[in-house]
Amino acid sequence: NDLFTDKEDSDSSLASGSLSIIVLGASGDLAKKKTFPALFNLYRQGFLPPSEVHIFGYARSKMTDDELKDRIRGYLSPSKNATPEVSKDVSNFLDLVKYVSGSYDSDEGFQLLDKEIYKYEYEMNRQEGMSRRLFYLALPPSVYPSVCRMIKLNCMNKSDNGGWTRIVVEKPFGKDLESAEQLSSQIGELFNESQIYRIDHYLGKELVQNMLVMRFANRFFLPLWNRDNIDNVQIVFREDFGTEGRGGYFDQYGIIRDIIQNHLLQVLQAVNPIKDEEVVLGQYEGYKDDPMVPQTSNTPTFATVILRIHNERWEGVPFILKAGKALNSRKAEIRVQFKDVPGDIFKCKKQGRNEFVMRLQPSEAIYMKLTVKQPGLEMSTVQSELDLSYKQRYQGVVIPEAYERLILDTIRGDQQHFVRRDELKAAWEIFTPLLHRIDRGSLKSLPYKAGTRGPAEADALLEKAGYTQTHGYIWVPPSL
Amino acid sequence: NDLFTDKEDSDSSLASGSLSIIVLGASGDLAKKKTFPALFNLYRQGFLPPSEVHIFGYARSKMTDDELKDRIRGYLSPSKNATPEVSKDVSNFLDLVKYVSGSYDSDEGFQLLDKEIYKYEYEMNRQEGMSRRLFYLALPPSVYPSVCRMIKLNCMNKSDNGGWTRIVVEKPFGKDLESAEQLSSQIGELFNESQIYRIDHYLGKELVQNMLVMRFANRFFLPLWNRDNIDNVQIVFREDFGTEGRGGYFDQYGIIRDIIQNHLLQVLQAVNPIKDEEVVLGQYEGYKDDPMVPQTSNTPTFATVILRIHNERWEGVPFILKAGKALNSRKAEIRVQFKDVPGDIFKCKKQGRNEFVMRLQPSEAIYMKLTVKQPGLEMSTVQSELDLSYKQRYQGVVIPEAYERLILDTIRGDQQHFVRRDELKAAWEIFTPLLHRIDRGSLKSLPYKAGTRGPAEADALLEKAGYTQTHGYIWVPPSL
Amino acid sequence: NDLFTDKEDSDSSLASGSLSIIVLGASGDLAKKKTFPALFNLYRQGFLPPSEVHIFGYARSKMTDDELKDRIRGYLSPSKNATPEVSKDVSNFLDLVKYVSGSYDSDEGFQLLDKEIYKYEYEMNRQEGMSRRLFYLALPPSVYPSVCRMIKLNCMNKSDNGGWTRIVVEKPFGKDLESAEQLSSQIGELFNESQIYRIDHYLGKELVQNMLVMRFANRFFLPLWNRDNIDNVQIVFREDFGTEGRGGYFDQYGIIRDIIQNHLLQVLQAVNPIKDEEVVLGQYEGYKDDPMVPQTSNTPTFATVILRIHNERWEGVPFILKAGKALNSRKAEIRVQFKDVPGDIFKCKKQGRNEFVMRLQPSEAIYMKLTVKQPGLEMSTVQSELDLSYKQRYQGVVIPEAYERLILDTIRGDQQHFVRRDELKAAWEIFTPLLHRIDRGSLKSLPYKAGTRGPAEADALLEKAGYTQTHGYIWVPPSL
Amino acid sequence: NDLFTDKEDSDSSLASGSLSIIVLGASGDLAKKKTFPALFNLYRQGFLPPSEVHIFGYARSKMTDDELKDRIRGYLSPSKNATPEVSKDVSNFLDLVKYVSGSYDSDEGFQLLDKEIYKYEYEMNRQEGMSRRLFYLALPPSVYPSVCRMIKLNCMNKSDNGGWTRIVVEKPFGKDLESAEQLSSQIGELFNESQIYRIDHYLGKELVQNMLVMRFANRFFLPLWNRDNIDNVQIVFREDFGTEGRGGYFDQYGIIRDIIQNHLLQVLQAVNPIKDEEVVLGQYEGYKDDPMVPQTSNTPTFATVILRIHNERWEGVPFILKAGKALNSRKAEIRVQFKDVPGDIFKCKKQGRNEFVMRLQPSEAIYMKLTVKQPGLEMSTVQSELDLSYKQRYQGVVIPEAYERLILDTIRGDQQHFVRRDELKAAWEIFTPLLHRIDRGSLKSLPYKAGTRGPAEADALLEKAGYTQTHGYIWVPPSL
Repeated sequence: NDLFTDKEDSDSSLASGSLSIIVLGASGDLAKKKTFPALFNLYRQGFLPPSEVHIFGYARSKMTDDELKDRIRGYLSPSKNATPEVSKDVSNFLDLVKYVSGSYDSDEGFQLLDKEIYKYEYEMNRQEGMSRRLFYLALPPSVYPSVCRMIKLNCMNKSDNGGWTRIVVEKPFGKDLESAEQLSSQIGELFNESQIYRIDHYLGKELVQNMLVMRFANRFFLPLWNRDNIDNVQIVFREDFGTEGRGGYFDQYGIIRDIIQNHLLQVLQAVNPIKDEEVVLGQYEGYKDDPMVPQTSNTPTFATVILRIHNERWEGVPFILKAGKALNSRKAEIRVQFKDVPGDIFKCKKQGRNEFVMRLQPSEAIYMKLTVKQPGLEMSTVQSELDLSYKQRYQGVVIPEAYERLILDTIRGDQQHFVRRDELKAAWEIFTPLLHRIDRGSLKSLPYKAGTRGPAEADALLEKAGYTQTHGYIWVPPSL
Repeated sequence: NDLFTDKEDSDSSLASGSLSIIVLGASGDLAKKKTFPALFNLYRQGFLPPSEVHIFGYARSKMTDDELKDRIRGYLSPSKNATPEVSKDVSNFLDLVKYVSGSYDSDEGFQLLDKEIYKYEYEMNRQEGMSRRLFYLALPPSVYPSVCRMIKLNCMNKSDNGGWTRIVVEKPFGKDLESAEQLSSQIGELFNESQIYRIDHYLGKELVQNMLVMRFANRFFLPLWNRDNIDNVQIVFREDFGTEGRGGYFDQYGIIRDIIQNHLLQVLQAVNPIKDEEVVLGQYEGYKDDPMVPQTSNTPTFATVILRIHNERWEGVPFILKAGKALNSRKAEIRVQFKDVPGDIFKCKKQGRNEFVMRLQPSEAIYMKLTVKQPGLEMSTVQSELDLSYKQRYQGVVIPEAYERLILDTIRGDQQHFVRRDELKAAWEIFTPLLHRIDRGSLKSLPYKAGTRGPAEADALLEKAGYTQTHGYIWVPPSL
Repeated sequence: NDLFTDKEDSDSSLASGSLSIIVLGASGDLAKKKTFPALFNLYRQGFLPPSEVHIFGYARSKMTDDELKDRIRGYLSPSKNATPEVSKDVSNFLDLVKYVSGSYDSDEGFQLLDKEIYKYEYEMNRQEGMSRRLFYLALPPSVYPSVCRMIKLNCMNKSDNGGWTRIVVEKPFGKDLESAEQLSSQIGELFNESQIYRIDHYLGKELVQNMLVMRFANRFFLPLWNRDNIDNVQIVFREDFGTEGRGGYFDQYGIIRDIIQNHLLQVLQAVNPIKDEEVVLGQYEGYKDDPMVPQTSNTPTFATVILRIHNERWEGVPFILKAGKALNSRKAEIRVQFKDVPGDIFKCKKQGRNEFVMRLQPSEAIYMKLTVKQPGLEMSTVQSELDLSYKQRYQGVVIPEAYERLILDTIRGDQQHFVRRDELKAAWEIFTPLLHRIDRGSLKSLPYKAGTRGPAEADALLEKAGYTQTHGYIWVPPSL
Repeated sequence: NDLFTDKEDSDSSLASGSLSIIVLGASGDLAKKKTFPALFNLYRQGFLPPSEVHIFGYARSKMTDDELKDRIRGYLSPSKNATPEVSKDVSNFLDLVKYVSGSYDSDEGFQLLDKEIYKYEYEMNRQEGMSRRLFYLALPPSVYPSVCRMIKLNCMNKSDNGGWTRIVVEKPFGKDLESAEQLSSQIGELFNESQIYRIDHYLGKELVQNMLVMRFANRFFLPLWNRDNIDNVQIVFREDFGTEGRGGYFDQYGIIRDIIQNHLLQVLQAVNPIKDEEVVLGQYEGYKDDPMVPQTSNTPTFATVILRIHNERWEGVPFILKAGKALNSRKAEIRVQFKDVPGDIFKCKKQGRNEFVMRLQPSEAIYMKLTVKQPGLEMSTVQSELDLSYKQRYQGVVIPEAYERLILDTIRGDQQHFVRRDELKAAWEIFTPLLHRIDRGSLKSLPYKAGTRGPAEADALLEKAGYTQTHGYIWVPPSL
């Protein structure tokens, strides 16, 4: 019950000593653009002290340490920031990096990797079993099982003398329930749950955590949080760009697997089967211009899906999940819309409903739409908002990049921002029947123009579900 | 039930034609400093068109029209604003003013006054009974009855052919239940309730109206508004100045009559008798330096009083009324403090309770104190606030002076911002026993230093009543 | 707020001394069948001590005291009960009765009546002004004004030295808002509200009072009593007999004026206008066989009317009023039906909703329909009821006739079971537009067979309003 | 979420074919008095068809089949019931019984047992792996591990071809957390959870199940079920007899292990540690007269323990567990006491609070204590109850003995009335610290006289916890 306990508990395991970070797939795009830059930023902030940390790149390509370093150097700091101080840091950071070449399914490569890691650990004079090994799989899921087997057989920290071995994997975790469970089983036979760190679509997790705090740390939400008061809940992820060259990859997954499924991770109890009439799919015009996308593709780049939760608290309240690419704006938010005021003495229906909004993008904010008395002496009302714009309230607080934070969590052994196996399974159970219907083509994606709100049918679905848009209301961003 | 209906109904009575505004006590301080300037501002905004309006001053002093005009001219516009345009307006406004001299208890003066008014109405070519007469009593309450009788006998609009006669009076309305009821009866025999406009301590009324809108125009307050969720309610009026030369007058009333009693006007159902142990009185050191204040004065300049409402919704919730003079700050607000979070998983008790605050002074704002997730990736919490600062949100909206607005309401026949007789009676019923105990000296005022928070005993009483102050929290005013 | 206070207050007025009960219309049916028998029963129970009480009959017919006594004797006790003891009581009771003859609109008769009353009071050696005079108008409403004027002019208790004069009238009080207000005004100019006792359709009042106690004296109703939990409320008055010779009288009023309007007396805040589509009217076949009923009569003998209350607590909850004559059963009850269980884990929807029922007829009972675990070890559920059958629980408690009690209340000055003028007005305001539509014939009564449930359209209306009948459930009356 | 699903699922496993019921400890008291009579009753009701069922007794004693049959025959039917028909049934039932002798820890005996079972199964012409074997351990827990190992090694149904092997064990399951977990582990290594049926103290389970249905199958409990409305909950098990010859056994466990711990099985989320000041222990005078009870025994025969649940719904509501032996009455009930009525207009506080009571013993009933209007015309109130007495409502429904039902559940594979391992563990975690303090003697049992309510300190504790007893209220059992 105490959400802080986990953290304190995890402190009891080893928190210092030799730390080897092994980036598997070191020559690939993900490693280059995301993993190494994140490691570099952690290094600069002092979280990866050179006295303890060594970084290993591993991939199939034959190349020297310097070739790897040249490849990643440019991504560590944008050229415009290249002050002498930063250049010095880059250079020192790259001194920690070593490259090992090998295949992903043979013992030889991993035995060599283990030897290199051990050599470094030995130099650090660590006792056996007290070293920490973090394997970051910057690789496609198809090779996860063989790579995990190789690690298990050849590269584990030698005893449980306080040290550990941890595996970081990234989604996609399967394409449906069956493939996801197969992947989970294969990895699960090799590592137990506490050693596996699945990186979630970060934004959704952060939004849901914000919401948990709001709900459970504030007395005034207690009586509000139920079907009597809440009319509908929307979880929205809009992007204003398309697949941008990743069309071939994206086409195999689609917007539901890519984004929507993840929103559910905290709310997946008692979800009724999704009905086709509560789904609107879209595909933006131009999506198939990508040569890697088949001309017959039905893959949705936009989806609005209504979930119905069958329990005492939420029966009858639609949870509306919206995600899309190539739309007219970029937005990530949760919007809780309250019901109309019964016995409305101030005739405020026309002004719009109360709404509670937590926004993560474009800029972090929390606000409550409400009706207030017009300032002044007239007894008339107007819709306004109680507002907490983080940027304004917390000026100067630097919000770290998600990747940096997640790597740090892995080192610290804090799993709360990662996806548990049962969460993953539950989300697949809900979505797999729908996904199969889409894959079979029995549910079609409607075309929409890039740069628009998406298919008009989606707005119609929202309205049918009870969502009431406030017209004539414009949010005035507080000036800085 | 529809708060807007009254207004529409009132529109059916005469809203144009000759309008005579008669300021009784025209030579006094109140008229000079408040009434005439308010009339001037209404004039400048076009609410008192010269084609319809005439203004009459009446007082005992013998003087000419010009002498009256000279006396008030300086108060109409601060010299620093004296642009040629303003000077022109002042001059035009004063053209509408005529002075009549007479005593407050003889028919002659009022017959003369009536003649002057009628002369003007006749010039306007109005039919008899269609003229509007507004009598503003800028006088002490002791002469209200005789003045009202004189008006009734000599100065009424002649028929009910759409015109009207209205009386504006200002508090204090009596010193206790008996004297207030006597005053009400004397006036009530002469005028019916719809003709009498009692000006309230304005601030309290505005705060309470804000609260009514918040409560009844917002769905999310519906389930919150009761003893299950609300721990205590505070209504606070702090002033940072003392009696400033009005000590002799103030000493006859004290802070409870002057301020606290008025807060009640909307919440006076089912109030239990006030207990001495739920009252803290104070008198600031230096109060008796005013030569008009008796050296033995026990009159409170500070009071904290807890009201207990005996009904299903509020039993057990203390309503804490606080008012004081010569304190360390100036503040008018309603503060609703919610209960602690039960089953507190985020251990947010230490951070402080949720509070909903409506502030009228020093600057109008509404905010909700709540606990949010620290921005960033840590799962930790911090107290913050959802905020609506009117100045920031409604830049450029001019909030009119209370007096102007109230005069305008009187002309329009909108009584909702005024005190009804039954409200007045109910408030006196609650406070009279306490006031009599103070007058008898069985309840003592504690001394406190000017420029402080008031007697420490008041804070102790609040704590005993359940109010939990948040320590270490500082409200950050949004920057403009 | 304290419902017991009124009673205690009323004790301060005179409760003993000479008491004259004057039955106006003494020779009529109502007096014979209801008024005198009720007085007799009060006498037998000791509430009308012969040392204090005298009874006067007044009517236009010329007859002797004995002729009046002969006329009423047979109604005082059914012949089967005629024990010698009862016969003795009858005889003693009749000794208290005196007859006075006169017209209802001339001073002479009432001056004579006053003289007779005074003579008796004088014999009792009462001081002037200390006597009590209760005038019971067993007369049609059309003569109320003139009779009241005669009483006022000629028959009042002489001073307010603790004694009093009270008037009891019976409905109907007018035929619509205008006629009712006219009647109220005419009587109101003569007597103030505290002297007038309007007898309501008693059953409704008792049911509503039961409901008030249930609601406000039981903690468990507090959170249930609102639109979130209650689906609909039914107030039912079914009679299994027709107009039985009173058709001519009934035809002028109809079932809505006769019964339905009275139910409202406690719930008349904020009722929306009644819509035609939420009304079903019926007239039983055979109703027009009464020679006094016009062949073109559209007068309803059955009505189902849905009221909609526009406030925060009840918006959206239909209040269904049902009344009818010549139906298949006799029933007076209030039935509160709760909403369905959300997130229904026990699949109890099929078993029926929770209902709370207060029944006054055919036998007084309170019960709560609920779902329980089948007795035994199976985990299955069944609908049952928590039950309070008054007869079983309170065996031997004699429930007095309404008329007796109301006369006693009048003597005691307890007005809470009577109709206040503002209640009456409010009820008429709601129903008058509907009644005028019926009178104009724009709303038709549907024919139904006597001895049935009434028109099938009424059941359809209920279903449309959300009422869900439980099928297959049979209430098992507890055996004695 | 659907409580009926489990049952349907279990139907998919084998529900017919050869069924061997093996009673281990066949010569002991429990087998004789409880197990065999329960089997006989199931047989008589047709649940154990002779064409499918064979019963094996197993124990260390050397004896013949007939000697076992003679030993148990007398317990199968009370002599007074010995009609010829019953005698015939007894005789036929005993024809199904076979005795096998062997030790509880050697392979030989169990191999012999297996051979006998197999022989019978072979006669039934069942395919291997399709037979059902139910082992009922009518034995002390100390031999559970060795017996389970012997069964596992020697007596299992041979494959999972639809058949099964199930183990029934009875409490006590350990003496504290450590010993219970050890026992669970030892059995858990041999059988998985779906094969183990732990028989609970039946009464508590039934009561809690009744409560679950009441709560979740009735709409009107939804808004009531929380700290805002409920003041306290009592779960009471009173017995009016002492240890009666079982003192030696009982002394090792005491009332908390014997009874109280089991009540928790459904409510064990988030229970705070039990505080000594919220515990009252007692030991009745005469308890130590049993020669098997040590003279220094501190073992409680009475306990009142208050549990505090730390979550949003229940924080602040005491759950009061009461159990005792040798008291003045026998009672098993759950009593939910609601809070006082706020703003109590009917002054019903003096009459007592609303209570909802589910009683299992002495006779099954559900009732709601509430305040009603006195029948009749007085506006006064009285406490009464809405009542459902099962005996009256369900006359003629035979409620089966718990043991019969549980054996039938085992055959059917329905585990919902049994204790899960995690439930058991959670209950021990809560009580073990308290039990250790009692065992160490740091918490003393207070003496109380047999046949009383127990120590007066227990009533004082209840009052301190907020329980308000209704004085002057007597429940009137409905007459039959």
